[in-house]
Amino acid sequence: MTIQALMQQIGTQARAASVAMAKATTAQKNQALETIADMLLADKAALQTANEQDLTAGQAKGLDAALLDRLALNDHRIQSMAEGLRQIASLPDPIGEITDLRYRPSGIQVGRMRVSLGVIGIIYESRPNVTADAAGLCLKAGNATILRGGSEAIHSNQAIARCIQQGLEAVGLPHTAVQVIETTDRAAVGELLRMKQCVDVIVPRGGKGLIERVTQEAQIPVIKHLDGICHVYIDDKADIDKAVAVAFNAKTQRYGTCNTMETLLVARSVAAEVLPLLAAQYAAEGVELRGCETTCQLLSAAQPASEEDWMTEYLAPVLSIRVVDDVDQAIVHIRQYSSQHTDSIVTEDWSCAQRFLHEVDSSSVMVNASTRFADGFEYGLGAEIGISTDKIHARGPVGLEGLTSQKFIVLGDGHIRQ
Amino acid sequence: MTIQALMQQIGTQARAASVAMAKATTAQKNQALETIADMLLADKAALQTANEQDLTAGQAKGLDAALLDRLALNDHRIQSMAEGLRQIASLPDPIGEITDLRYRPSGIQVGRMRVSLGVIGIIYESRPNVTADAAGLCLKAGNATILRGGSEAIHSNQAIARCIQQGLEAVGLPHTAVQVIETTDRAAVGELLRMKQCVDVIVPRGGKGLIERVTQEAQIPVIKHLDGICHVYIDDKADIDKAVAVAFNAKTQRYGTCNTMETLLVARSVAAEVLPLLAAQYAAEGVELRGCETTCQLLSAAQPASEEDWMTEYLAPVLSIRVVDDVDQAIVHIRQYSSQHTDSIVTEDWSCAQRFLHEVDSSSVMVNASTRFADGFEYGLGAEIGISTDKIHARGPVGLEGLTSQKFIVLGDGHIRQ
Repeated sequence: MTIQALMQQIGTQARAASVAMAKATTAQKNQALETIADMLLADKAALQTANEQDLTAGQAKGLDAALLDRLALNDHRIQSMAEGLRQIASLPDPIGEITDLRYRPSGIQVGRMRVSLGVIGIIYESRPNVTADAAGLCLKAGNATILRGGSEAIHSNQAIARCIQQGLEAVGLPHTAVQVIETTDRAAVGELLRMKQCVDVIVPRGGKGLIERVTQEAQIPVIKHLDGICHVYIDDKADIDKAVAVAFNAKTQRYGTCNTMETLLVARSVAAEVLPLLAAQYAAEGVELRGCETTCQLLSAAQPASEEDWMTEYLAPVLSIRVVDDVDQAIVHIRQYSSQHTDSIVTEDWSCAQRFLHEVDSSSVMVNASTRFADGFEYGLGAEIGISTDKIHARGPVGLEGLTSQKFIVLGDGHIRQ
Repeated sequence: MTIQALMQQIGTQARAASVAMAKATTAQKNQALETIADMLLADKAALQTANEQDLTAGQAKGLDAALLDRLALNDHRIQSMAEGLRQIASLPDPIGEITDLRYRPSGIQVGRMRVSLGVIGIIYESRPNVTADAAGLCLKAGNATILRGGSEAIHSNQAIARCIQQGLEAVGLPHTAVQVIETTDRAAVGELLRMKQCVDVIVPRGGKGLIERVTQEAQIPVIKHLDGICHVYIDDKADIDKAVAVAFNAKTQRYGTCNTMETLLVARSVAAEVLPLLAAQYAAEGVELRGCETTCQLLSAAQPASEEDWMTEYLAPVLSIRVVDDVDQAIVHIRQYSSQHTDSIVTEDWSCAQRFLHEVDSSSVMVNASTRFADGFEYGLGAEIGISTDKIHARGPVGLEGLTSQKFIVLGDGHIRQ
């Protein structure tokens, strides 16, 4: 079978399965999630045998230690997958929710009903746990899923998919509601990105290279963020203790995450007070500092930042620092360099905080809080499929709601238009 | 200047203007709308002189009477444009609305703030009033607009745009917030559809040819519907009086609109009762009937329908009719042939109505109401930029809200992530 024919078959099956998923009951979906969790634990040995195949092949291919670690399905990770699915089962079912149902002067009642999107394509890299996490969220939102994981995790992903499919069938849902693409041919991704008739939205999860390719090639809407160049701005009216706590946490709580601060902006009038305090804390953690001219004058530890630094997502213990005149200049800097992911102001000034909240055009805008809070769990979404920096459809952390749509419903009693 | 350079200039100006529009106050935007309305009325003579140029050129080019009629800016239409703008001014401002602001266990407050999308590209055909209607809606939603009308309306559109730009400047907003593309070169549309950096969403308004071209070429999200193949299903538990009223109104209240019924589905057990009643009414209006075999047996006036008929948006006094076994077969027919615009069931049966509401995957799903109600005004949106049959972002009639997005806001007091 050609790749094109294979993908067409997968797409057609997914579209057909999405009809059954859209009308699956809450009980059915929750029971499927619980059953899959049980099966992942019961089949632990089989999962780990499949995972061993991937790890052995990865070692033979010379994958680096970090990649091999991401690939490994140890007991703890299998347990986490199962817990994640049970947590999704415990979330309220978004499907069928009716809102804003109001009578109109014509006598009809008009409202909105939340419905599933249809078929979601997930393209991800080496972590096999994404197979269960992503499929579980899509399942709860009443969608069918087509999964394309990294070739280095193919056996692990297939083993997880078998558990998922058995769980679906156990509750009378079609096993084709979750399909893993079983070929490692890269052309399959190209096909997936063009299957407008069969796929409603694509969610890429992985590094910048993957996201860029998907964005370039997709003819289907994509939920994604490319970069996380997040800022904290310490205003001249900031409480210095809060400023130091937030700026330290936003950089050092974790380095490799998209909501980590990459650039610190500091108001000129407080720079001499706050920057040395922060520099001492950063030094203790081994964070390298790259600053503007004023920053370098204030901090002997800082190296000069280049234009490139303001545009860089380090994902590492490196921080760029710029001293700005005021909130206006901070907002202009953010407009120019932010990836519109998450930006935060530290201030006690009401009007400055309001201006920052209204004028900074990012998916999350914060006052007196660490950028590290930008996360579906912290926001109370229960789980997240990813974080979107696009403005269309879903913005910021995307949970179950972002995997749904709303249709209008009209209730009449033989009403006709005059 | 090349077309590419021209479009780049327009796009860059629009992006810059969108920053000012996003923070424009409600009073400023409403005052701009009122001022533009005043100017359209004050400049009526100039508008009509410009319109005469288009009409004369159109006659010379041999445009047909219907097209020339759509092009004409008579007193009534100028009055309507002005009233439309005042009505938009009277709608609540969606921008800045904060919802779902809740405390999280970590102590932060998380909510959502409604914000403008940025830059909207509108591509439309011969009706110059779209210039004012579309620009007005985008303006109220805090967006900048790039308008590309039909070449046959170029002078009229430019004259309307001048009024809009004067209205913007009168309240201190940039005149570049509403720009009309002044070249009639078709390459300009191609450029517009690819300007990802400068344009956030494209709204095409016009015939199927236009929508198809835009959908094919756009690298930017598009809010659109291609077809309006709408169904009414008369269930075996329908109240016959309501069924006749709804099915007659849905077809004949207006023929050329996208929410007009194009196919009538009737349950077998009531077909012999309801179809002759309807056929008599349709005959009085001169509606041509094309039916399935059973329909043709019941109605001497009906011609046999071909497979093609179920897929056709007639936009004319023509109706296809199919007798189906039950609600299941009706839903299957709709799944196969509906354009997912608007579909309605007529029934007194609670469970059938619920099933139809939940299982029919169209942008509007109705019970005991005419499909002709699918409209932003009838739904209480105040106005509409169009109707979307897509599932992503906006679905069904799109009013001000569809021209906005939501960002997350986080309010803390020095909160850090543990």
